[in-house]
Amino acid sequence: MSKGRLEAFSDGVIAIIITIMVLEMKVPQGESLSALRPVLGLFLSYVLSFVYVGIYWNNHHHMLHAAHRVSGLSLWANLHLLFWLSLFPFATGWMGENHFASAPSALYGIVLLMAAIAYWILQQTLIASEGPGSVLKKAVGRDWKGKLSPVLYLAAILTSFWSSLAAQGIYAVVALLWLVPDRRIEHALKANGSLAE
Amino acid sequence: MSKGRLEAFSDGVIAIIITIMVLEMKVPQGESLSALRPVLGLFLSYVLSFVYVGIYWNNHHHMLHAAHRVSGLSLWANLHLLFWLSLFPFATGWMGENHFASAPSALYGIVLLMAAIAYWILQQTLIASEGPGSVLKKAVGRDWKGKLSPVLYLAAILTSFWSSLAAQGIYAVVALLWLVPDRRIEHALKANGSLAE
Amino acid sequence: MSKGRLEAFSDGVIAIIITIMVLEMKVPQGESLSALRPVLGLFLSYVLSFVYVGIYWNNHHHMLHAAHRVSGLSLWANLHLLFWLSLFPFATGWMGENHFASAPSALYGIVLLMAAIAYWILQQTLIASEGPGSVLKKAVGRDWKGKLSPVLYLAAILTSFWSSLAAQGIYAVVALLWLVPDRRIEHALKANGSLAE
Amino acid sequence: MSKGRLEAFSDGVIAIIITIMVLEMKVPQGESLSALRPVLGLFLSYVLSFVYVGIYWNNHHHMLHAAHRVSGLSLWANLHLLFWLSLFPFATGWMGENHFASAPSALYGIVLLMAAIAYWILQQTLIASEGPGSVLKKAVGRDWKGKLSPVLYLAAILTSFWSSLAAQGIYAVVALLWLVPDRRIEHALKANGSLAE
Repeated sequence: MSKGRLEAFSDGVIAIIITIMVLEMKVPQGESLSALRPVLGLFLSYVLSFVYVGIYWNNHHHMLHAAHRVSGLSLWANLHLLFWLSLFPFATGWMGENHFASAPSALYGIVLLMAAIAYWILQQTLIASEGPGSVLKKAVGRDWKGKLSPVLYLAAILTSFWSSLAAQGIYAVVALLWLVPDRRIEHALKANGSLAE
Repeated sequence: MSKGRLEAFSDGVIAIIITIMVLEMKVPQGESLSALRPVLGLFLSYVLSFVYVGIYWNNHHHMLHAAHRVSGLSLWANLHLLFWLSLFPFATGWMGENHFASAPSALYGIVLLMAAIAYWILQQTLIASEGPGSVLKKAVGRDWKGKLSPVLYLAAILTSFWSSLAAQGIYAVVALLWLVPDRRIEHALKANGSLAE
Repeated sequence: MSKGRLEAFSDGVIAIIITIMVLEMKVPQGESLSALRPVLGLFLSYVLSFVYVGIYWNNHHHMLHAAHRVSGLSLWANLHLLFWLSLFPFATGWMGENHFASAPSALYGIVLLMAAIAYWILQQTLIASEGPGSVLKKAVGRDWKGKLSPVLYLAAILTSFWSSLAAQGIYAVVALLWLVPDRRIEHALKANGSLAE
Repeated sequence: MSKGRLEAFSDGVIAIIITIMVLEMKVPQGESLSALRPVLGLFLSYVLSFVYVGIYWNNHHHMLHAAHRVSGLSLWANLHLLFWLSLFPFATGWMGENHFASAPSALYGIVLLMAAIAYWILQQTLIASEGPGSVLKKAVGRDWKGKLSPVLYLAAILTSFWSSLAAQGIYAVVALLWLVPDRRIEHALKANGSLAE
């Protein structure tokens, strides 16, 4: 029950974050198609952030599906994750309005990095509650994606001051890394329905 | 359970989309009734979009009611649908502020078209999980509305550059098409309560 | 289940409406207490609207608690109610910014009137599904509040062009009418817990 | 069931409050890191308010977990609490934009004070429904934090006109007071899982 409310609250916050990001895309003044051009940067940064928030919702969903109990510490670790996710609209808006300039691209990476660390902390508190032989511990496995992502975010932050385009490339690669189903999930899909329902 | 959270998250996002659309209607400066006149275009576009988002919520609700399992692919197909729905406030605001001019009317149609395609993709992934003999497959049937709508949206997009009023007419007709209960639903209503509860 | 999702979606929309109303209260420029003075009108109109939306949520909650099945028609009647409730932030903001002037006060009354009519329609569709001998039909009873309120809103709309202060008085009286528990509810409270849980 | 919907609605409102606070942090104009400097005040006030709203969600969650029935009075006491919480974004934005000046700091304290009183009222109505021998009554205990906090808020309000920095210090101390788990919760954690799930 407590777990249900944690999920409901997280769903609410993530749903709002994903939707208010689009509010940063201000309705343009003119009525011609060319009036949309200044919005293009914001649109592209919105697409990237939508995918990232979608990945977080998806992973959060699967992680809590495998968890059975939620400690008081996990409640706060979850709020900590939501805090960094809540900065996505700000970072997205600043990056999009400045056409992926260096400093906004770096800030975007910092928010991604902090969210990844917060997600990892939440995962650890949940595993600590579940115990080392738990389904969650096995499902997480070696977690190479979770370990590689922060390194890539850090690389992108540093890269952004040299070439913000390259930094964007890294952000896109990490997103694709999470979108492409890995063997673990493929395996689960073959087991026909263990992920489903 | 996974299905429950998918519904809850979708409800959250759709509820926010339907409500923030009204935020595009900025409070007018004057205190006389005539101060409302510039808002009229936005109000009319808001009504149209409210009906469309309501139709999507309604159909989404019935479709998932008939589904039993939700695959990882369906989660992403659902996020893809929510992405296009999230552009409704932007498209509605641009169209309303420019009094249904050509380019904004066309963009509105593009968002409608993409949302319809995304809904169709979600439907296919759900049917794929359920199997060909499933209740969902039967409930969807030949899906003539789902097939006709994109064609009409495409027609409206092309029409908008010739007469944006005619394009609006097509958008209104498609909305009415979905609002009017078809035989399938009538049949279900006669079967007294199979849609209910 | 369908009822559960209707409640969840309505809760989401009403929660957003009640919260974005406060966004109309723009943060003032100065840092002295006197900078708050221009916001006072908006604050008062916000309090009034918060109470009204709270009443709607409360009544909606009790009505659906007594209902067992939700027809396709009720889904649309519910969306119709949510549409008029979604105009509360706009009407509240316009009234508050213009210090309860005539036209904004009248518009506020029109939104209240339409929401009351929409609520009554939803109630009728639910009773039609439940049948004349249902708990819901008995719980609604003669519904004198539901019948008196639209008359008072209409009176307030007309009054607002003569004295907007008098119109505000009527709005406040109707809100109090709903806040004060009537005999029916008192009776239920004496029956100790039939409303609870 | 009624309790479930109260929780869902409260979660929705609190989720929106916590997320729209970040909207007060407007995207800065420049693209250099120094453009972020004016936003720093808002960021710090956002962090403080995020922690406070998080504490309220956490405590609300635990309190309703221990409650079994929700009276009509409790529904309104809950709405009353949500009303004061809904003023957090306004108070946070005003305080952040004016770099923690005296009057905004005092207003922030008033909102905190009123929310604390509203929480206490909600607690009393829930205990009244549950009875003196209830789990909730025992869980609340002597409630020294709940009694001390309003006194400290009052002290901070008065202090803010002398030194707003000292007032901020008090706000931070009260937040830490609630964040640090007390013996009661530690005890529950040792009992391994009674708070969990």
